[in-house]
Amino acid sequence: MSKRGVITVISGFSGAGKGTIVQRLVEQYGYAVSISATTRAPREGEVDGVHYFFKTNEAFEEMIRHNELMEYAGYVDHYYGTPRDYVMQQLEQGIDVILEIEMQGALQIKERFPEAVLVFITPPSYEELQARLTGRGTEGADVITKRLHRAAEECAYMEKYDYIVVNDVLEDCVTQVHQLVQSIHLKREHQQELIAKISRDFADHAR
Amino acid sequence: MSKRGVITVISGFSGAGKGTIVQRLVEQYGYAVSISATTRAPREGEVDGVHYFFKTNEAFEEMIRHNELMEYAGYVDHYYGTPRDYVMQQLEQGIDVILEIEMQGALQIKERFPEAVLVFITPPSYEELQARLTGRGTEGADVITKRLHRAAEECAYMEKYDYIVVNDVLEDCVTQVHQLVQSIHLKREHQQELIAKISRDFADHAR
Repeated sequence: MSKRGVITVISGFSGAGKGTIVQRLVEQYGYAVSISATTRAPREGEVDGVHYFFKTNEAFEEMIRHNELMEYAGYVDHYYGTPRDYVMQQLEQGIDVILEIEMQGALQIKERFPEAVLVFITPPSYEELQARLTGRGTEGADVITKRLHRAAEECAYMEKYDYIVVNDVLEDCVTQVHQLVQSIHLKREHQQELIAKISRDFADHAR
Repeated sequence: MSKRGVITVISGFSGAGKGTIVQRLVEQYGYAVSISATTRAPREGEVDGVHYFFKTNEAFEEMIRHNELMEYAGYVDHYYGTPRDYVMQQLEQGIDVILEIEMQGALQIKERFPEAVLVFITPPSYEELQARLTGRGTEGADVITKRLHRAAEECAYMEKYDYIVVNDVLEDCVTQVHQLVQSIHLKREHQQELIAKISRDFADHAR
């Protein structure tokens, strides 16, 4: 196992179950999750530094200028972004970090951090996504229709991700994501310290 | 999971425990193992079509000419190679196939089958490899010295492999290899059927 943590980006259709998957990964396997910065106002129950880092417009733009964000984007009057420091601190401690972000942000991450692993979560079928969105009972029919249309558009992004994981049975999906992230640690690029140690070790003795 | 099997090449230093690992992968997880063709004479107890396909020189060279080998090499008067048909049949049935071959053969496979996954098995240290080779009690001191020297030379090959797995605790190593091979099925390249199905599915409904 490499000592440095791995960045894993998790995206997927609204209703695919990303939030639950990420929560399980944290609880069961000790992953860290990045906390986004945003300029929108806190909703009831949201705590600064826990759910988001709430920022003024000026403070957010200063973070952009100082290159303190790994990715950011503006949506409907508000900025959202991923502060770099917290993620880097976790990685250096050998903790794998999950970024649960939307697709454009994911591509920004991949461009700037090519070693990041992009995982796309999809329900097994359209019918299942529809059933889940309807089953929540929290959104009206037109919101659901809008999300399904957006999902149809987002299909094109799947080709940009490193791994596609189906969320059919939640536990299986969580296990698959965990195992694929762990397998990244075994990749040659992440085993350079080990290769150097073994090579040195063997060369010294073979003399 | 993609329907087609994955080719996994397993190599490593003599004494790293490859044979045992492959045997466990077959017994515990149902992998198929390719059977090599060779021109050397069968040793006591070796069965044609089980341990090797035993071939005459002429028959082997005909296999080369007819492109029936995935890789081959000549060692000390004898040919060794991997017949293609058996492997392809397994892959088409969705069975993952392991090729336990040495490093030059592994690189031939990667060149001809870039989708193959190359896994290098290493003991945790030189001392451990030495202890294992000595502990076997089957080889004299000069054979062991020769193997250790060869291992030192083979270190350079690690940089050519996709994954480096340490065989410290056997069970952990077997699990790691299995999980990394399974994660390959989740890679975008292996999920093309799923991506096409989901995209079609969603586009049809979004109209």
